[in-house]
Amino acid sequence: MKDDVMQALLEKARTLTEALPWIKRAWGRVAVIKYGGSAMTDPALRASVAEDIVLMKLVGVNPVVVHGGGPDVSMYMERLGMTVEFRDGLRVTDDAAMEVVKMVLVGKNNKELVSAINTHGRWAVGLSGDDARLIQARQLDAALGRVGQITAIDTTVVLNLIEDGFIPVVATVGVGDDGRSYNVNADTAASAIAVALDAEKVIFLTDVDGLYADFGDKDSLISALSLSEAVDSIASGRLSKGMVPKVTACVHALENGVERAHILNGTIPHALLLEVYTDAGVGTMITREGLAVSREPDRVMREDEVTCPNE
Amino acid sequence: MKDDVMQALLEKARTLTEALPWIKRAWGRVAVIKYGGSAMTDPALRASVAEDIVLMKLVGVNPVVVHGGGPDVSMYMERLGMTVEFRDGLRVTDDAAMEVVKMVLVGKNNKELVSAINTHGRWAVGLSGDDARLIQARQLDAALGRVGQITAIDTTVVLNLIEDGFIPVVATVGVGDDGRSYNVNADTAASAIAVALDAEKVIFLTDVDGLYADFGDKDSLISALSLSEAVDSIASGRLSKGMVPKVTACVHALENGVERAHILNGTIPHALLLEVYTDAGVGTMITREGLAVSREPDRVMREDEVTCPNE
Amino acid sequence: MKDDVMQALLEKARTLTEALPWIKRAWGRVAVIKYGGSAMTDPALRASVAEDIVLMKLVGVNPVVVHGGGPDVSMYMERLGMTVEFRDGLRVTDDAAMEVVKMVLVGKNNKELVSAINTHGRWAVGLSGDDARLIQARQLDAALGRVGQITAIDTTVVLNLIEDGFIPVVATVGVGDDGRSYNVNADTAASAIAVALDAEKVIFLTDVDGLYADFGDKDSLISALSLSEAVDSIASGRLSKGMVPKVTACVHALENGVERAHILNGTIPHALLLEVYTDAGVGTMITREGLAVSREPDRVMREDEVTCPNE
Amino acid sequence: MKDDVMQALLEKARTLTEALPWIKRAWGRVAVIKYGGSAMTDPALRASVAEDIVLMKLVGVNPVVVHGGGPDVSMYMERLGMTVEFRDGLRVTDDAAMEVVKMVLVGKNNKELVSAINTHGRWAVGLSGDDARLIQARQLDAALGRVGQITAIDTTVVLNLIEDGFIPVVATVGVGDDGRSYNVNADTAASAIAVALDAEKVIFLTDVDGLYADFGDKDSLISALSLSEAVDSIASGRLSKGMVPKVTACVHALENGVERAHILNGTIPHALLLEVYTDAGVGTMITREGLAVSREPDRVMREDEVTCPNE
Amino acid sequence: MKDDVMQALLEKARTLTEALPWIKRAWGRVAVIKYGGSAMTDPALRASVAEDIVLMKLVGVNPVVVHGGGPDVSMYMERLGMTVEFRDGLRVTDDAAMEVVKMVLVGKNNKELVSAINTHGRWAVGLSGDDARLIQARQLDAALGRVGQITAIDTTVVLNLIEDGFIPVVATVGVGDDGRSYNVNADTAASAIAVALDAEKVIFLTDVDGLYADFGDKDSLISALSLSEAVDSIASGRLSKGMVPKVTACVHALENGVERAHILNGTIPHALLLEVYTDAGVGTMITREGLAVSREPDRVMREDEVTCPNE
Amino acid sequence: MKDDVMQALLEKARTLTEALPWIKRAWGRVAVIKYGGSAMTDPALRASVAEDIVLMKLVGVNPVVVHGGGPDVSMYMERLGMTVEFRDGLRVTDDAAMEVVKMVLVGKNNKELVSAINTHGRWAVGLSGDDARLIQARQLDAALGRVGQITAIDTTVVLNLIEDGFIPVVATVGVGDDGRSYNVNADTAASAIAVALDAEKVIFLTDVDGLYADFGDKDSLISALSLSEAVDSIASGRLSKGMVPKVTACVHALENGVERAHILNGTIPHALLLEVYTDAGVGTMITREGLAVSREPDRVMREDEVTCPNE
Repeated sequence: MKDDVMQALLEKARTLTEALPWIKRAWGRVAVIKYGGSAMTDPALRASVAEDIVLMKLVGVNPVVVHGGGPDVSMYMERLGMTVEFRDGLRVTDDAAMEVVKMVLVGKNNKELVSAINTHGRWAVGLSGDDARLIQARQLDAALGRVGQITAIDTTVVLNLIEDGFIPVVATVGVGDDGRSYNVNADTAASAIAVALDAEKVIFLTDVDGLYADFGDKDSLISALSLSEAVDSIASGRLSKGMVPKVTACVHALENGVERAHILNGTIPHALLLEVYTDAGVGTMITREGLAVSREPDRVMREDEVTCPNE
Repeated sequence: MKDDVMQALLEKARTLTEALPWIKRAWGRVAVIKYGGSAMTDPALRASVAEDIVLMKLVGVNPVVVHGGGPDVSMYMERLGMTVEFRDGLRVTDDAAMEVVKMVLVGKNNKELVSAINTHGRWAVGLSGDDARLIQARQLDAALGRVGQITAIDTTVVLNLIEDGFIPVVATVGVGDDGRSYNVNADTAASAIAVALDAEKVIFLTDVDGLYADFGDKDSLISALSLSEAVDSIASGRLSKGMVPKVTACVHALENGVERAHILNGTIPHALLLEVYTDAGVGTMITREGLAVSREPDRVMREDEVTCPNE
Repeated sequence: MKDDVMQALLEKARTLTEALPWIKRAWGRVAVIKYGGSAMTDPALRASVAEDIVLMKLVGVNPVVVHGGGPDVSMYMERLGMTVEFRDGLRVTDDAAMEVVKMVLVGKNNKELVSAINTHGRWAVGLSGDDARLIQARQLDAALGRVGQITAIDTTVVLNLIEDGFIPVVATVGVGDDGRSYNVNADTAASAIAVALDAEKVIFLTDVDGLYADFGDKDSLISALSLSEAVDSIASGRLSKGMVPKVTACVHALENGVERAHILNGTIPHALLLEVYTDAGVGTMITREGLAVSREPDRVMREDEVTCPNE
Repeated sequence: MKDDVMQALLEKARTLTEALPWIKRAWGRVAVIKYGGSAMTDPALRASVAEDIVLMKLVGVNPVVVHGGGPDVSMYMERLGMTVEFRDGLRVTDDAAMEVVKMVLVGKNNKELVSAINTHGRWAVGLSGDDARLIQARQLDAALGRVGQITAIDTTVVLNLIEDGFIPVVATVGVGDDGRSYNVNADTAASAIAVALDAEKVIFLTDVDGLYADFGDKDSLISALSLSEAVDSIASGRLSKGMVPKVTACVHALENGVERAHILNGTIPHALLLEVYTDAGVGTMITREGLAVSREPDRVMREDEVTCPNE
Repeated sequence: MKDDVMQALLEKARTLTEALPWIKRAWGRVAVIKYGGSAMTDPALRASVAEDIVLMKLVGVNPVVVHGGGPDVSMYMERLGMTVEFRDGLRVTDDAAMEVVKMVLVGKNNKELVSAINTHGRWAVGLSGDDARLIQARQLDAALGRVGQITAIDTTVVLNLIEDGFIPVVATVGVGDDGRSYNVNADTAASAIAVALDAEKVIFLTDVDGLYADFGDKDSLISALSLSEAVDSIASGRLSKGMVPKVTACVHALENGVERAHILNGTIPHALLLEVYTDAGVGTMITREGLAVSREPDRVMREDEVTCPNE
Repeated sequence: MKDDVMQALLEKARTLTEALPWIKRAWGRVAVIKYGGSAMTDPALRASVAEDIVLMKLVGVNPVVVHGGGPDVSMYMERLGMTVEFRDGLRVTDDAAMEVVKMVLVGKNNKELVSAINTHGRWAVGLSGDDARLIQARQLDAALGRVGQITAIDTTVVLNLIEDGFIPVVATVGVGDDGRSYNVNADTAASAIAVALDAEKVIFLTDVDGLYADFGDKDSLISALSLSEAVDSIASGRLSKGMVPKVTACVHALENGVERAHILNGTIPHALLLEVYTDAGVGTMITREGLAVSREPDRVMREDEVTCPNE
């Protein structure tokens, strides 16, 4: 065999075996993926995310996708002659707007990802928060109309679908005790669902690379930090405005039992695979207190971290 | 106890025990309910249908609801400035229209019934045909755009949800091998799903009472007829135009293994319960060849028809 | 449709939907039915009880029937030339009498109800307390011979039969550590079995309507009262003699975890169905502390009380 | 160790290991035991049979006991002033007699054996043919009243109880489609139940040693014979009158799939164990065509006959 | 039947029924058998042990066999020109010696017993301590080389094989965290495995009869003693040198939850069966505190000790 | 992110996603790996194979490893002073030699791979052909002594271990009906086991790259060929002598239901992963008739080939 061919083969083998300790660690666990940003609007990136999610499923992780609405909601509202208004980042949502929100999230965004995943087989099943009363909510503020605050997560249908071999894809519409729908924040919902499912990790797909030590220096991306460092970073006031809710959602998840939270740039093709199955990763990983902050993999077997299929 | 009180009690007891042979016969079987007409647009009727479906579930039947879109599709298309056009009863559906069809069916109509059912507990899970590749379709005619013809039903997710104790509610959007969506006829889909699930019955909720012996005479409603009589009635040309596709869907279901098909007036409150659990019923029941045409119940036990929980 | 026909239909629908919250509440739970009085001796009432029990089974409750002997025991003893003697309401039972008690309870009374139930299918399985050591007992008083006091309930065979889809019908013969049989009180046994099975309810079928506020006033039937009120009623001395052991058995059950106890008049046809599946009921219901005393149904969903099949 | 002690030990070891091939062969299979004769009336023999049955259960066989009534039926009928009459060996059974037959079989004989077995633990559960419609029958001859002929065996409850770890003990009362009871022949019922359960063997406990080559010569007991030899022996007319129905029942069982039928003298203590777990046996064994007639055990492993627990 | 034949039969029946209380007590429990001594080197004794083990399996016990190496290890080492050296009873084991130890234990001794058992069917599966990381160990003393001390027992594969119906046969090779093998003491390993499996009993097959009250008097064999008496006997210094590690292993097992420990003379044919299924036994039984020391069987049922298959 | 970093990341992503269709195709299926050659003797290659096998297990394949002995057998025989002799490639094996063969295969070669795999967790369980009578054999030729021919494969223990989550590693010692061991060919055994397990593939790890179109031209390696082409290649006489038994074993497997057979060079690190999870592969793949010969992956979903976890 020629040397360059052999070199290329060895590189491939290195990539595959590099994945081994990461695959072992996550085997049989749940990973909640908050899907959003360009990955939701660009069909090529959506196909890449779909492929990554199927690969994660095949190598033993149970992905659960959570998403809100993208720019389509405002676009449709405008085309229907409705007023688009935000207060403190929250969409003012009257009953007519709520109907549009729901149609776009559940009938358009959700189904686009479901279909992309299902080009690989019979995998994805879309859910909205009112299916099997998955996301329960109540009104946050009368002035905001149908903007909701999550009161409970009922994981029954998600766990049943995972056990049946499916990939649940959840649109973040909440349902009240009165059976009415509420518009809930998707980052918050992803975090709450990760906690309720006792997920190993929650991953936020955004359009930025992660957290920077020095926001002006693109070379200062932080690959790994601890929960307390993340809490400090919020307090420091140096996070970009868009990053605060993401990091806050990460902190909430980690404080309630999730082991690792990741913030990724979804415009990098296959960012999910690269973050989860390579040593260096591509984004920022925040770890729960008590777990190693570094990305150094557990190549030496530590019994308490390995999750084998026969346990 | 006073006589009139006792009479009222006996009447109640008679109604409950009248249901016994019908409950026994359907125990553990699937009933596909094609939901449409006024029951879909009128909130009070929707609540009544939801209550009936939960009661059916509680007394041992496994209801699967199938629905298309109602007048909301055209309404939204018009508000969005799209042209609404039908050819031979089929909606001309370009890509933009397909997106609206899907948003209305999956994000609005489906969720309205799901929420109504779930006021009674954690029962309903909404599905569209692309979830787990449930309804597979291909283009019917290029001139009609995304109007589809069903090529296969994959019942996996429906059966899993039934086994997990849920009530599946299916919006009739089909998915192609290319991952694109198709607008499929809801009556046809209900019939195909009933066949694929080996359902005991398929029920069409419409706005008419059923079939009439003499269309002009409202007292001539036919309570029960055989499959061959139903086939003849289509051939006779005496059916109303709206009734032909319903009866055709019934015939298809019965010729492929479903035992009973029903056409009901969904404007009668609790029409489902009355048709399924009373001796007289309220609509028209068509039975497969080999089964008794009459509504006379099996009050004498016939081993081969009883489905007990311990079988 | 004619108005009077429609009215009759609506009445039927009202009865069926009135049952919904009660069916939901009891779904999957055990109901112990103490069978006795005229319902045991009158074949028509026995058939009515049998029909009610099968309907309860079909709508999701797990009925367990418990019965003692009726007048047949004394009748057969007299025909066999034995002396029939009671002391403080307890039958003096020598060995020969015990053999007759057992033959009548297990070989006659039990099988009559089993056969009545099984005209509806393969449902009932008769048991006596020595089968799988279900009712364990010891001698109460040497002077009374084989009259026994319950020492333990072994629910294994009852739970297995329920899981296998059957309706257990238990004759209240107790078995001692020595393998000998004992004559145990059927009301006490029903209460003990309800406690051991963690039943939702225990129902006493008698020949009176229930408890009266004023024993002389037949209009003063108490529809619902609390456990503490029931305890008071025993202390008050105003209960009829025959009612004291029933109410005492109810109190024992409720103090040990059963949620509701009912005393019904079994001479009312379908009294079981009317008590369990209608809002007003027909007898007296006593509720455990902490549960609502009123019969007002839970039409608004309260998660902690609903028992869905998918929980 | 002293020689005689060692000799006694070796003898014990020989007995235990002699049982090994027989235990292997029957592991996990059903053995139907027709219980009758002195073993039913003599408490000491009953205790011995009970001990044998529990030991069989513990070493992996699933015993199912079947019994009719003994002399107690006639005794009670006479004490109650009824006429005892037989025609061609069949008891003339009017309705009143049927009630007595049932009380004695189900309430006395059945429970005596159940209690004897249950001194060893929570093993036996008594059944009569109307429980779960186990033995279905119809009238044989109007002149004989309630004498019945078996029409079907429904093994559901028996199989469920075996799976749940119990020993079913069946009193041979049949039930008609009309819910009425019939007096059926116990030998015939044992054979029919063995066939329906696909039993490995059926064993008839009687008061004679088995079949003799020469009826006058007590040394001529036939230890093993083939099905065709058994058929011939009936045709020969040389069988004793009491033996004809037993051998006929054996032949019926073997012609319908049971592998071995045994006729034993139940007055020999532990006759069951000795017949089933020793090389020589104590009675007469009849084998299905295709199986070895001789009692020579399979000490060399033959895969197709061994039933290991892990198959 | 002739008297002497009947006497022989009764003797056999007595032996079989004598086993009943012992079979009941051990049903479904694990018995760890330390296999060693002459039973390992003599093919006839090995066959006898194999037969006993299969019989124990068939009558409901789950045997797990544990063994070290016999004289074969030294023999092969000498033939290969290696030095055989012991210090304080421990074999000095360099890497080359370890390879030989492993080949002999796993490839020879283990397979000889596996094959002997499997002449009776598909029962035995050989394991060494590195299979599924069953016996985990670390170096005891650098001067002894690869002599190991047990650090953990991982029972997963043993429990899986038992559940699948097999008889595990374990060679006592330990595995370190570094993946290297260690030579561990077989008596200690048997005791540790019995504790880890929550075994009912551990049995040491040796070449002596058991413990003697007076070592010089062969008639003074102690049939049964308590744990505290066993502890005292070690302290007394009167035990033979070879017996100290056996009794110490027994004490460790009993102090950690095993109920009974036995020391037997494996040169007595079928010593296992005789010890386990006869009233007198053949060796010395030591019982955990709280259990009866005497061998008197529980012929009277005591619920808390009986383990029935249906519990 | 810098361009070269991004390029490297994209390359990694490409490698991971390239694996997707191959992972999907093999999901849940068995792959039998014949382990031999340098991979068995070189510790570094052994570690590489072990890592590949664990990765295969983690991504959903069920690997079963089969191996014979390497040069160690002859080495130990010579050290023990035995004569090493081969006739027609078969080792003359007297009883003493058989003992050595077994010790080396089961106690050394098998355990070396088991330990290497288990550095990654509790995965591997070693088996020899006499465990649970897995490989059954008889003497091939008296002149060759204990050389055996396979008569049957009993897959029970292998399937049980797979279901319990383990990786079985099988040493190819056969067992006769007489319980004696036989030396069977490892290539033949691998093929027979693959057939018996209905494996998706069988892989032969050797020290050559595969089949060459022109044996003298190292660039002429055949990447993929059909079963009939493989049959022709044997007939052609152009195969190297060592390759004939490998290709013959492949042909046998493919003719009996295995879908793909692979011949790989085990001296290439991670050859297993590269062959199984890359498009080009590194060895020679032979496919059953009816399957595509080319290595072109099924990137377009074909329902009949995809094996999803939820099927």
